[in-house]
Amino acid sequence: MPQCHDTDLKQVTLTAPFWRNYQALVREVVVPYQWDALNDRVADAEPSHAIANFRIAAGRADSQFHGMIFQDSDVAKWLEAVAYVLSLQRDPALEQAADAVIELIAAAQQPDGYLNTYFTLVAPAERWSNLAECHELYCAGHLFEAGVAYFQATGKRALLEVCCRFADHIDATFGAAPEKLHGYPGHPEVELALLRLHEATGNARYLALAGYFVAQRGAQPHWYDEEYEKRGRTAYWDDHGKGWMVHDKAYSQAHLPVCAQPHATGHAVRFVYLMTGVAHLARLQGDAELRQACLRLWDDMVQRQMYVTGGIGAQGWGESLTSAYDLPNDTAYAESCASIGLMMFAKRMLQMEGEARFADVMERALYNTVLAGMSLDGKAFFYVNPLETVPRAMAASHAHDHVKPVRQRWFGCACCPPNIARVLASLGRYLYTDREDALYVDLYAGGETAFERDGACFTLSQRTDYPWDGRVEIAIVADRPFTTTLALRLPDWCVGPTLSLDGAPLAFDARRGYAAVAREWQPGQRLVLELPMPVRRVSSHALLRQTAGKVAVQRGPLVYCVEQVDNGSELHHLALPRAAEFSLLPGEGVLAGMTLIEVDGQRRLGHADADTLYRYDAADPQWQPQRLRFVPYFAWSNRGEGEMRVWVDAL
Amino acid sequence: MPQCHDTDLKQVTLTAPFWRNYQALVREVVVPYQWDALNDRVADAEPSHAIANFRIAAGRADSQFHGMIFQDSDVAKWLEAVAYVLSLQRDPALEQAADAVIELIAAAQQPDGYLNTYFTLVAPAERWSNLAECHELYCAGHLFEAGVAYFQATGKRALLEVCCRFADHIDATFGAAPEKLHGYPGHPEVELALLRLHEATGNARYLALAGYFVAQRGAQPHWYDEEYEKRGRTAYWDDHGKGWMVHDKAYSQAHLPVCAQPHATGHAVRFVYLMTGVAHLARLQGDAELRQACLRLWDDMVQRQMYVTGGIGAQGWGESLTSAYDLPNDTAYAESCASIGLMMFAKRMLQMEGEARFADVMERALYNTVLAGMSLDGKAFFYVNPLETVPRAMAASHAHDHVKPVRQRWFGCACCPPNIARVLASLGRYLYTDREDALYVDLYAGGETAFERDGACFTLSQRTDYPWDGRVEIAIVADRPFTTTLALRLPDWCVGPTLSLDGAPLAFDARRGYAAVAREWQPGQRLVLELPMPVRRVSSHALLRQTAGKVAVQRGPLVYCVEQVDNGSELHHLALPRAAEFSLLPGEGVLAGMTLIEVDGQRRLGHADADTLYRYDAADPQWQPQRLRFVPYFAWSNRGEGEMRVWVDAL
Repeated sequence: MPQCHDTDLKQVTLTAPFWRNYQALVREVVVPYQWDALNDRVADAEPSHAIANFRIAAGRADSQFHGMIFQDSDVAKWLEAVAYVLSLQRDPALEQAADAVIELIAAAQQPDGYLNTYFTLVAPAERWSNLAECHELYCAGHLFEAGVAYFQATGKRALLEVCCRFADHIDATFGAAPEKLHGYPGHPEVELALLRLHEATGNARYLALAGYFVAQRGAQPHWYDEEYEKRGRTAYWDDHGKGWMVHDKAYSQAHLPVCAQPHATGHAVRFVYLMTGVAHLARLQGDAELRQACLRLWDDMVQRQMYVTGGIGAQGWGESLTSAYDLPNDTAYAESCASIGLMMFAKRMLQMEGEARFADVMERALYNTVLAGMSLDGKAFFYVNPLETVPRAMAASHAHDHVKPVRQRWFGCACCPPNIARVLASLGRYLYTDREDALYVDLYAGGETAFERDGACFTLSQRTDYPWDGRVEIAIVADRPFTTTLALRLPDWCVGPTLSLDGAPLAFDARRGYAAVAREWQPGQRLVLELPMPVRRVSSHALLRQTAGKVAVQRGPLVYCVEQVDNGSELHHLALPRAAEFSLLPGEGVLAGMTLIEVDGQRRLGHADADTLYRYDAADPQWQPQRLRFVPYFAWSNRGEGEMRVWVDAL
Repeated sequence: MPQCHDTDLKQVTLTAPFWRNYQALVREVVVPYQWDALNDRVADAEPSHAIANFRIAAGRADSQFHGMIFQDSDVAKWLEAVAYVLSLQRDPALEQAADAVIELIAAAQQPDGYLNTYFTLVAPAERWSNLAECHELYCAGHLFEAGVAYFQATGKRALLEVCCRFADHIDATFGAAPEKLHGYPGHPEVELALLRLHEATGNARYLALAGYFVAQRGAQPHWYDEEYEKRGRTAYWDDHGKGWMVHDKAYSQAHLPVCAQPHATGHAVRFVYLMTGVAHLARLQGDAELRQACLRLWDDMVQRQMYVTGGIGAQGWGESLTSAYDLPNDTAYAESCASIGLMMFAKRMLQMEGEARFADVMERALYNTVLAGMSLDGKAFFYVNPLETVPRAMAASHAHDHVKPVRQRWFGCACCPPNIARVLASLGRYLYTDREDALYVDLYAGGETAFERDGACFTLSQRTDYPWDGRVEIAIVADRPFTTTLALRLPDWCVGPTLSLDGAPLAFDARRGYAAVAREWQPGQRLVLELPMPVRRVSSHALLRQTAGKVAVQRGPLVYCVEQVDNGSELHHLALPRAAEFSLLPGEGVLAGMTLIEVDGQRRLGHADADTLYRYDAADPQWQPQRLRFVPYFAWSNRGEGEMRVWVDAL
């Protein structure tokens, strides 16, 4: 299997407005707001207590632990986001704040390397006694990701060293040896993080430990049962019944060994976090069986259980996947974090497989669900990303308790906002896959990225107005010629892409979804990829009943939706005639800079008599022509509360 | 307001096969099975413990209380059903069993009249301390209904006397006097039962007590809060959070005084049980304000929140109503008991108003949801009555946890089976409304019913094959002529009804939905009402998004559905062309005797590639002609597990 190097995040600079604006929002709005939130300084939000917990654990304050059992991870995700922000642009004040947090974290670390404020403060005797439910390894993983990112961004080793001491402690605690614990995390994350720590430090024990956690998962007798009995059948969570998280092992993807799991199942975030680690491990260890599991579970996820917006997790119960071809639009969960995890999984599959289909899905998740997770002003977030909302019906329907019609500023379980921040700030990690067989361009985004081939440094300089326009210009910036295969992704939504080099058409092999060009490249050469971007109608598999007879609208990577503010209420009566021609128009106000879509559609006129819910033998329905306006799904709910719908009736 | 007498259940004898068969099932299958269940003699069901609890409370067994806090009510509902069965046909063995149960109940009654096995055995000090949650008055109400019915059926007073002692105890405990408790039931039922007890005994205190409970409901300071504080904030139920039933007062329709409630809301069964009592009270007391509340809340229920099957309660959470125009088909609750309660509410509205629209809804609930609640062999029951099921999707989707694709034999919370038994056995109570202004025929069913006018006894003898045929023959059986207005209901689904008397067309006034004929009737006269019964397409209000563009099929009072066994799977692709002609055919096998419907429809052919969930710019959908078969909704799921759907796409 080809060897690949993680793209160095410091060498990616995004210059095109689309992503530059998002990254500026993260830097200027999201990270500062979250810093205030972590420090309990946001007046209209529940206090987070996350920094306070560390202060108490470090012996610098005298109070009690508050917050979720995984509250520490919010600090880690903030630090990781800060690392990416600093990698994009220096900011001494921010770096100073981060350094102070890191010093605080180090002070909270126990002499044996253990680090978790909940267990240190609340239940020191219960460390590692409830892996199924208690998120210790999950928090560890987020800390490791922060430590790696902060080291790569700043060169500072303090947090990395905290992480290594903690990882060494975990390594001394878990493993196959009889005296060690034979458990593994209820919420995967530490696996993918140990592999990043391994790559950053070169320490092979972290690779082995990740391998142990993956191999041990689902083994019999089951660890969750063993520790449950050992601690006297106590349970931490009881939302769905005492010990449900222990007993419903598929929720944690621990019902079977990973290689034996037939379907994508359980808590969606857990699933993709686990598989991100598994795919990374499969590549690093050249494990064919793990690779097959990755391919099988990926396919089950994207071919049976993924929303057209790249969301996964069809139900609020357990924030989890359901079954094949069951994707309700209005009660969807489609958690922002799950689509972020899906991007991470996709990235690891790209590194292993070099196939564009993984990038197609990564792009779908990024441009739709992940972006929809944050408001255009960076100040509010969706945890849940439905494909249909009817606010008037949501208040009284508890089936919609998890669905909000407008974004919220912060959450008691605040996983999504910092997760969105870190993925947007580190977007450069997702653009290219640098493999031995080729340098793959997976996503198109204006910016500069440096690479190395045979000792020669060169930069690919992308210029594009993507996702609004499909023209991508890639300039070769180098001191001297170099030879490599450049593989430019041909998106699945694109028909008839063309490539030219310095103005002359360039033939290419379409190879696993890429236009692959192998040649000696000259400094100053200019590749132009034209990706025609017509508006396309999307239809769904016959077994998917929730979208039967309906159509979604997509242009480039963007899925569109209709909103009440543009189209009136009762969006369920809008219909899109099959032959209607789309036209493009520029967005205005908060949608300025976006390309909107209009089309001559129809509105079904049903009866509206207040005293008759049902009518017999109604006349054929009357249709009224209506100009329909579609806006990018990621931009919905930025103009007040109202109905929204992705799938409209096809007429 | 006109005064009305409750129809004496003993004088109604149903002879036509449709109802006779159902009543035979209740007598021969349901009541014996439930007797075994109550006595824990059903091998494959959880023990009920209901009779055992009474034995322990009576000091005849030494064990512990088991079951729901309202387990006693299962015994009461069984006794009430037995009473109706005995009123239809003598059965000494059954009567002996019932007498023994009544003797046992009497033995369990406390010296002060109190009667409830849970509190007597588990928490004797906590009587009446948690009305919001603990169902003591609910159980009392069911006992009163049983006592009244058993007295009316058999003339035996033992249970009625137990009830009166208990009612007197309640009357001594609750009321406006400062030393009394100012509470009222969390689950309404005792109000409607006290009014039946009042009518059976003539005791005005029971009327006054029902009036107190209704008037006190929702008063401030709120009783639920007062008792909650008094008992130290303990809660009995915690499914949705500690004390949720105390705090979510709309769940129990206790958020506001009844007269101030704007919408039908909360637990659906509670709502209709409450309103049954309120409508009865409004009539008996001539209370204009209560009557307006009944009319308003009735309209909100049937014009905004009722399924086409007569089901109410759109969500599993709290088995409750949601909001206007929100009726999901696949996650519907539409509890069998709620539609039974809706029939009870409708009956009281008929007595008060004499308007056919209440009977239209009563009939809709009876012939669709209530009948669907029981299998054709009387051996299994639906608690929840969805309008769409896809079994393959239900196992993994917790939004469908409450929905079963096939009927169950018994339930831990076994309210529905005995409720269905008692309503079917007492169906005669719902056929006629005998008011001073007219004798109203509300439902058509072959049978004999005796009435009295000016001292003259006469019998109306209905002959009809309803609901399969709309011809209804009513013979006047009397010794001598009598004068009255006969008001024959003109169902809302019927266009062009005609009436004849002894073969000659008879003119009639259509008055509030009835064909009213005022005359002197001669013995032997024969009225024939012809209700044309074409198959009708039903469409829904424009605001009801879940049925937009869809159509349901109804013939007479019966709503039909498509099932997988007749039409193949993926019912979401079936479409009914607007002009297609329906044809009728006889059912076979378990559907023998039923009228089925066929029509030339279409099936949408979507793509079915396993590796593609979404497709771009798919060709116009192909349609394949398919003969569609519709079966009565009440008969669904009697031929194995499969998809079912009431609303199909209109083409």
